[in-house]
Amino acid sequence: MTGQLQQSIRSLAAALRDGTTTSVALAEEAIANHARFGTALDAYKCRQDDRFLAEARAADAAFAAGLDFGPLQGIPVSVKDLYGVAGYETFAGSPAALPEKWEQEGPVVGALRAALAPVAGKTHTVEFAFGGVGSNAHWGTPRNPWDAAAHRVPGGSSAGAGISLCEGSALLALGSDTAGSVRVPASFTGNVGVKTSFGRWSLDGIVPLSPSLDTAGVLARTVPDAVLAFAAIDPLTDIPGEALLAALSELTAGDVHIGVCDHFFEGCDPGVAEGVQAALDELAAAGAQISKFDLPEAAAADEIFMRGGLAAPEFAAFITGEMAKSKATLDPNVAARFESMEAITAVDYLLRRARLAELAASADDRMADVDVVVGPTVTITPPTVEAVSDGEGYRTNNMAALRNTRTGNMLALSAVTIPIALDKAGMPVGLQIMVPLDEDERALAVALAFELVLGDRVQRLGAPPMCQG
Amino acid sequence: MTGQLQQSIRSLAAALRDGTTTSVALAEEAIANHARFGTALDAYKCRQDDRFLAEARAADAAFAAGLDFGPLQGIPVSVKDLYGVAGYETFAGSPAALPEKWEQEGPVVGALRAALAPVAGKTHTVEFAFGGVGSNAHWGTPRNPWDAAAHRVPGGSSAGAGISLCEGSALLALGSDTAGSVRVPASFTGNVGVKTSFGRWSLDGIVPLSPSLDTAGVLARTVPDAVLAFAAIDPLTDIPGEALLAALSELTAGDVHIGVCDHFFEGCDPGVAEGVQAALDELAAAGAQISKFDLPEAAAADEIFMRGGLAAPEFAAFITGEMAKSKATLDPNVAARFESMEAITAVDYLLRRARLAELAASADDRMADVDVVVGPTVTITPPTVEAVSDGEGYRTNNMAALRNTRTGNMLALSAVTIPIALDKAGMPVGLQIMVPLDEDERALAVALAFELVLGDRVQRLGAPPMCQG
Repeated sequence: MTGQLQQSIRSLAAALRDGTTTSVALAEEAIANHARFGTALDAYKCRQDDRFLAEARAADAAFAAGLDFGPLQGIPVSVKDLYGVAGYETFAGSPAALPEKWEQEGPVVGALRAALAPVAGKTHTVEFAFGGVGSNAHWGTPRNPWDAAAHRVPGGSSAGAGISLCEGSALLALGSDTAGSVRVPASFTGNVGVKTSFGRWSLDGIVPLSPSLDTAGVLARTVPDAVLAFAAIDPLTDIPGEALLAALSELTAGDVHIGVCDHFFEGCDPGVAEGVQAALDELAAAGAQISKFDLPEAAAADEIFMRGGLAAPEFAAFITGEMAKSKATLDPNVAARFESMEAITAVDYLLRRARLAELAASADDRMADVDVVVGPTVTITPPTVEAVSDGEGYRTNNMAALRNTRTGNMLALSAVTIPIALDKAGMPVGLQIMVPLDEDERALAVALAFELVLGDRVQRLGAPPMCQG
Repeated sequence: MTGQLQQSIRSLAAALRDGTTTSVALAEEAIANHARFGTALDAYKCRQDDRFLAEARAADAAFAAGLDFGPLQGIPVSVKDLYGVAGYETFAGSPAALPEKWEQEGPVVGALRAALAPVAGKTHTVEFAFGGVGSNAHWGTPRNPWDAAAHRVPGGSSAGAGISLCEGSALLALGSDTAGSVRVPASFTGNVGVKTSFGRWSLDGIVPLSPSLDTAGVLARTVPDAVLAFAAIDPLTDIPGEALLAALSELTAGDVHIGVCDHFFEGCDPGVAEGVQAALDELAAAGAQISKFDLPEAAAADEIFMRGGLAAPEFAAFITGEMAKSKATLDPNVAARFESMEAITAVDYLLRRARLAELAASADDRMADVDVVVGPTVTITPPTVEAVSDGEGYRTNNMAALRNTRTGNMLALSAVTIPIALDKAGMPVGLQIMVPLDEDERALAVALAFELVLGDRVQRLGAPPMCQG
């Protein structure tokens, strides 16, 4: 990515207001960036540049009229093709467009509209968001820009979201997260990912995967960008983005008691655990208190996840019911599991729910002992497309990709991932910062403080090889 | 029932305040009434007269100190043995006491405590509330006091609740309603029954049957009594009971547009439809507007109910999980169905939920055309214990008993039943007044207005033969 889109949203917001730039100029630059880098990366399912530019003109016209809708006004955003966006069909990664009702915008997209943030396009998703590596049998798998030699997966299910930020065609990317679908692509592409608390952001206008676990979220390049997006979207935040950013910035790394959980370090690929440990050492040097922390509920919840959790039956019900037409064309990796999903009994499903609720309550109690619980966001190096091309390779990598993030959904936690290192393969490593339900602000404040110590992506990782110069 | 307990709660509240009576006097009379009528009727699983009297003394002591906790202060209440009540074991109709956690009082009992209403005892329930006729294989089936010749069922699952009012051992009775368990016993025993809106009254401290459908509710002898109880318990009501009663009393029968739904008149036993029609004629004569009203969602929801609805899998999960110890001793009528309950798949369960939510939304829209939808609360004459003693007789009568009330739970309606006639067998007939979710006050206001035209139980039906003199 080049030019002014390299700047932070805060700095662009200032430039838009002092006349140094315009929303149209930003949109044109975003379009140019996509033209330059995007063909190889394929982040978008669908783009409508005319619409994008028209929305940018509307943002500029509002500035000209003295109307200010906050720091996202005129800032290009991408939207996962699981969300309804007016004027766009919704495919949700499936081969045919879904019924028109899924094109309706819900409150999350509505919040971006209210902020006058132009929509650059709709990004690719794993089919019905059911998968964590980012592959799509119908539309192809977007390419992770951090490896110029091999086609590595971008993480999923918000497969195009992180790439849209890397290539500079958007400064914010809406995603959704049922087992890690915001955090895994954020981590795999070296971006910040915010998985909000269950129930906090409306799911209206978003194709469901597992209504008991689905959460809406956002990817950004830096934590301050993410905080400004959070403030604009979050229905419980009633202060402007700049004020929230100022309030959350009062925390320093030295104020934070970090619980480090061995569970999240199991099975790490080369360089992942080392990268996280180096970051923790830096945070300790900056005064953070670091303790070992046991979270036995994570392994207990995993046991349920391995049997399909809640998502398998809820997804199967959605496909069997409302999406019956899409069943015949399901991705083979998903279709292969459908029969076993359908065999889960209601009693088993309800007992899983009850057990997860117990585990969540227990984890919530336990986490009161520390400010945040951390670990690698993902334990593995983003695999190549080839490595996930057969059923077994897909299954193994998919489970491994979601291993550390699914805990947050099953135990009803809020979490933020920040990029903190490159692994031995030169691929990004994320640090996952987990907090209890509805402590979203705390996760963001800690992420801000950590980023100040560790540096943001540009400072720490540099630019992705396929988006340089 | 004899003596001062024949009076309304409002009049007793006045008598308690002007020194004409005391709470202890009322409790002693309640104990005497139970001693006189109760042995044959067997409404209670457990009574603790010392505790009852001590609570009455506390209410009197508060009066003496000038403390007034509202119109229920000093008024005897009975509580279904599905609720936790301090100092009582909870059996939930099963042969062994449940773990101690089920003895904890939740917000509904807590509201009666805050009102200083003494608890007369815990009333019998169908085992785990799973059944509508009121039978219990472990503890015997309480006797409906309206037939001195034959042992007829009292309605369930709040099997003892209505009887406690008939015999004069309590003036209010807490029940719970998953498919009709407040309204059926209220109708079968000639009392008023209030099924609150789903989610409105907390279910904490109540043994669950089907958490997606369970509602707490109350039985009373007259609608004004029920309104005072509603005001004391309802967390959304923030005015005193007398003020709510005054506000709701402004409505007259002439203001009401009644939708009469043929569906609810199908399969009526002799005298049931006739009794309801006579009441509707009287209401029309009083100025009510009466229209035919179609509610096709009722039959559509029935189709789901017939396959076990949501209650079968949710109940099976509760028994299989937390209540595993109770599984071996389940009532044969329930145990016989357990295997088929366990076979329901999660996909089927979730599709049922989705379908019921659609039907509820559709019914809600449709009901905007009228003020209330009415029909017989129960279509059948309360059967004899003998008629429900074999599997087939039980099953047929159980389904028939719940036929008109289950609609309210499945379509998320609020409903009140009021006694309006005796059928050909001399057994009480109820008029069910249904309104959309969270319109509980409207149902109560209409019930008040209708009762004013039709007369209350004493005026219209007289006293139950087994509780006379």
